[in-house]
Amino acid sequence: MSPKMTTELLKQLRQVMKSPKYVQEPVQAYIVPSGDAHQSEYIAPCDCRRAFISGFDGSAGTAIVTEQHAAMWTDGRYFLQAAHQMDNNWTLMKMGLKDTPTQEDWLVSVLPEGSKVGVDPFIIPADQWKRMSKALRSAGHDLVPVKENLIDTIWTDCPQRPCKPLITLDLDYTGVSWRDKIVALRSKMAERKVLWFVVTALDEVAWLFNLRGSDVEYNPVFFAYAVIGMNTIRLFIDGDRMMDPAVREHLQLDSILDPEFKIQVLPYGSILSELQAIGEGLSPKEKVWLSDKASYALTEAIPKAYRYLTPYTPICIAKAVKNTSETEGMRRAHIKDAVALCELFNWLEKEVVPKGTVTEIIAADKAEEFRSQQKDFVELSFATISSTGPNGAIIHYKPVPETNRTLSVNEIYLLDSGAQYKDGTTDVTRTMHFGTPSAYEKECFTYVLKGHIAVSAAIFPNGTKGHLLDSFARSALWDCGLDYLHGTGHGVGSFLNVHEGPCGISYKTFADEPLEAGMIVSDEPGYYEDGSFGIRIENVVLVIPAETKYSFKNRGSLTFEPLTLVPIQTKMIDINLLTQKECNWVNDYHQKCREVIGAELERQGRHEALQWLIRETEPLIRVQ
Amino acid sequence: MSPKMTTELLKQLRQVMKSPKYVQEPVQAYIVPSGDAHQSEYIAPCDCRRAFISGFDGSAGTAIVTEQHAAMWTDGRYFLQAAHQMDNNWTLMKMGLKDTPTQEDWLVSVLPEGSKVGVDPFIIPADQWKRMSKALRSAGHDLVPVKENLIDTIWTDCPQRPCKPLITLDLDYTGVSWRDKIVALRSKMAERKVLWFVVTALDEVAWLFNLRGSDVEYNPVFFAYAVIGMNTIRLFIDGDRMMDPAVREHLQLDSILDPEFKIQVLPYGSILSELQAIGEGLSPKEKVWLSDKASYALTEAIPKAYRYLTPYTPICIAKAVKNTSETEGMRRAHIKDAVALCELFNWLEKEVVPKGTVTEIIAADKAEEFRSQQKDFVELSFATISSTGPNGAIIHYKPVPETNRTLSVNEIYLLDSGAQYKDGTTDVTRTMHFGTPSAYEKECFTYVLKGHIAVSAAIFPNGTKGHLLDSFARSALWDCGLDYLHGTGHGVGSFLNVHEGPCGISYKTFADEPLEAGMIVSDEPGYYEDGSFGIRIENVVLVIPAETKYSFKNRGSLTFEPLTLVPIQTKMIDINLLTQKECNWVNDYHQKCREVIGAELERQGRHEALQWLIRETEPLIRVQ
Repeated sequence: MSPKMTTELLKQLRQVMKSPKYVQEPVQAYIVPSGDAHQSEYIAPCDCRRAFISGFDGSAGTAIVTEQHAAMWTDGRYFLQAAHQMDNNWTLMKMGLKDTPTQEDWLVSVLPEGSKVGVDPFIIPADQWKRMSKALRSAGHDLVPVKENLIDTIWTDCPQRPCKPLITLDLDYTGVSWRDKIVALRSKMAERKVLWFVVTALDEVAWLFNLRGSDVEYNPVFFAYAVIGMNTIRLFIDGDRMMDPAVREHLQLDSILDPEFKIQVLPYGSILSELQAIGEGLSPKEKVWLSDKASYALTEAIPKAYRYLTPYTPICIAKAVKNTSETEGMRRAHIKDAVALCELFNWLEKEVVPKGTVTEIIAADKAEEFRSQQKDFVELSFATISSTGPNGAIIHYKPVPETNRTLSVNEIYLLDSGAQYKDGTTDVTRTMHFGTPSAYEKECFTYVLKGHIAVSAAIFPNGTKGHLLDSFARSALWDCGLDYLHGTGHGVGSFLNVHEGPCGISYKTFADEPLEAGMIVSDEPGYYEDGSFGIRIENVVLVIPAETKYSFKNRGSLTFEPLTLVPIQTKMIDINLLTQKECNWVNDYHQKCREVIGAELERQGRHEALQWLIRETEPLIRVQ
Repeated sequence: MSPKMTTELLKQLRQVMKSPKYVQEPVQAYIVPSGDAHQSEYIAPCDCRRAFISGFDGSAGTAIVTEQHAAMWTDGRYFLQAAHQMDNNWTLMKMGLKDTPTQEDWLVSVLPEGSKVGVDPFIIPADQWKRMSKALRSAGHDLVPVKENLIDTIWTDCPQRPCKPLITLDLDYTGVSWRDKIVALRSKMAERKVLWFVVTALDEVAWLFNLRGSDVEYNPVFFAYAVIGMNTIRLFIDGDRMMDPAVREHLQLDSILDPEFKIQVLPYGSILSELQAIGEGLSPKEKVWLSDKASYALTEAIPKAYRYLTPYTPICIAKAVKNTSETEGMRRAHIKDAVALCELFNWLEKEVVPKGTVTEIIAADKAEEFRSQQKDFVELSFATISSTGPNGAIIHYKPVPETNRTLSVNEIYLLDSGAQYKDGTTDVTRTMHFGTPSAYEKECFTYVLKGHIAVSAAIFPNGTKGHLLDSFARSALWDCGLDYLHGTGHGVGSFLNVHEGPCGISYKTFADEPLEAGMIVSDEPGYYEDGSFGIRIENVVLVIPAETKYSFKNRGSLTFEPLTLVPIQTKMIDINLLTQKECNWVNDYHQKCREVIGAELERQGRHEALQWLIRETEPLIRVQ
């Protein structure tokens, strides 16, 4: 992977930063955040402005360009990738390391006195604007909204915003109708005494209306906003997709129904002026509820006195707690996903060991092929991380022809992949060796496995926040002075975004909501040795009630049930490093894989993969 | 303990809340926070306003009185105590439980529209003011500063503010002179480009000038503020204590020295007007550094544009990382403290078992007596928690005649106590049984011990925040559905406050600073069974570098060294619940107690206590 040459682009950007055509006054710095106008993590090509200007296309990162400097902040998952993709014009700011300055501190250290720092107000979340604006102001600078996106002005071949057809989901999949979701939302609004609720996150719009789209790769969402009043529903969406009879039927657009469930369809681009009109018409005490991560532009449309901002919206919280239809769907999706992976791993063993012709890309494509054979498969849920040897240490690696390595009997292979099925979303990582792993590789793998089990088997009181479980995943690694520079788990959507809030398991998150039965998160500790190998073991797990010996103050306890049922390669385990309890966990897990996935492989007539599954789920026996 | 009758007091308070003599407009609610004007946790009798109005005298709690209601927010340590001490006029708000409203939410739910909520601006920290003011404003109410403290207006027999003599500490104890501390502070100020630093916390003033006082029981501090400029030092302090020749010599008040080290002594009460004068004289870009926990009154004295607020001051952070003189002093203090406790426990065994005449108060007094025999003993570091049987479940219990129980061979006894020595501060909890503990008591004790060991023996990377270790202390309890409703550890001062920031080990704290070698914290998990017993095992531990097998990215690792060296009663341990590693930890710890404390008992000629120590540190032997 060769870095993108950005000298000319940066020159052009620095010109428009001073051009009266775009800015009232010249800006001495311009911030290019990662997200789109909905603060999405995964974005459409037309929104990949940070990748366009820098070359770095990881899922998280913020670029800041000044007259003299260009700097990129990203986290531990992307240190290597960003370093590879950016040319010498760029300074990499490694977030999470002690000496890395914050964006604000760095700006203050490099800017001349009284500078203006520009940003697109639609792209920056209101809470970030506030923090940054305050820090800059206290150092004598100004954060200013630049209405025209300056990257767009120099991006001559910028792709068009997608506008693909919608999928309607019926009750079998969602468990709750969109009307009942609106009723529940309005009752939350009444509780907080707000009159309007603005839905800005794409997955929240999709969830609320039981619709899915494909405007953003891997995330079954579509570009839209919604504004819910106590008696009105406005949906801001473009294109002829609302002409689709199935969609019209699903949303009852042509039915005569109670006026409070009548959906008014408006152009996507009219959200700002509609919100401004709402803002102007408010009487004292009338409030509008927005996420504090909504864009600065939309937040500012509502006068400050009328805003009701919360870090998580009621939709975000309701969406995270899956109902029975959703958990059953997730179970089905994970069974199908495991079938595909058993097929893949069986195929890899047959191909890699004797022939040595399988590359990372071929393996990733084969995984997709097996998944696409499963019922209700829609697309992948993220770009497959298929990495062997040193590529495995690039935490969010995606194989491309320049880096594509061939799988061999001498290297560790890491596959992190998942899919969107109409009944659920999957995300699974397995790390394996097709030859004989070294003692050190097994040692590291076993520490990661111990961490995985420590989280998966943890029992904790109701009301515990996920970040309090993060250290359990690291303890075995820490004992030997090892660690990994990413969180341990993220929320997973139900045929929705593979990363979703408000829960997770990460030392970095403090504002997470407490774990509740029905929430679904990933459990994915790892270990990465730069230049050598990467190890990660990831299951998607469901939060379930736990029975305990004593139930302290009747608070109740929770634990996790793995939804992912794919064997963990026992060849990689140094059994002497496991306790008896850990050993039992592995054996019980493999027994369940054998029973559940074995039955499905049998049903689908996949006999060779079934043999592979049975072989890979032989119990570990610990010599005392 | 019978509750305080508050009907009359509340009536009086509600009258002054409407009296034009004290308030410009009537206030519909009045907030009585816990702290004093320095946001101290432990306060002088004249500042115990919340205890005066409610009867509840625990160390943490906020009272809010409205025209109809009186409510008290406190945390899990104090649920039982507060319930006992308050009459029916009061509603107890149990913080940390899911359904307990925040103060803001509660106010919004009970206040009539457009209410005014009053508070003493010297008592409320600026950050709390901001949060509460914002929440109230967004619900149509106003937070207003009430200059005259309304509790003081009805507190006819309020004691005087103390003004006791000072103790000077020389370099042997402090390791760094006050002049060098000022130099270091000014260099931090220069880094952040601030011209003035306002020292508002009492322990920060004491630490900065290497002085100690006794204005507040248990905390060797004195009422004072300081304002440090780049060339000036102003100390705001009352009384004739500055006439003491030792103090004058220590502060070089009568020496001719560089003007930038000349200390200007001003009356305590003049801080506000002096700060206002500084605020008025500032030019643009001139900043004044304050803690964001400084009082609203002092913070407001500096115009907003000139304020530089941080959650932790550079003094707070420097104070937390102990230098060699301080750690050596802490070691000495803990050895003396252990000698006193060995004497106490030996004495208790001789008295309780055959005679049954020792009450909680007698035991606490005896502990103080033994401590006072040790060199450089100054006073206790907090009110001794001497509790037997059900009293042990009241987490911050203090025995009083009404509740005083007699120790017996049938109940668990919990002693949480500590002292101030001129060379260090101690805080230790041991839980013991003088007869035969039940299997359930042993089971619970052993889970608590497992948690204690899990923290004490934890190895973690440099830069880890203490709150990430909190769950280690709970894991064994959680597995059985048990828990405790307090944090696991707090920072400990060096002959200073027994609770100090900015580090700690608690699920409740997210803004804690990362642990560093030289920091000192407590490790004190517990388990409390209401109405039956309390268990807590507490050591003070020093953060030290740890050697690991692999040193990931050369970040380095840390672990803890126990400074407390007092046997943990092995009779209470169910050895079958310990792993071999945990068993070894106990044996190694007891071996060290025997060596270090044994030698000191020998030196002090305390032969009987030495025999007790040897008996109590017999190794555990685990039958495989």
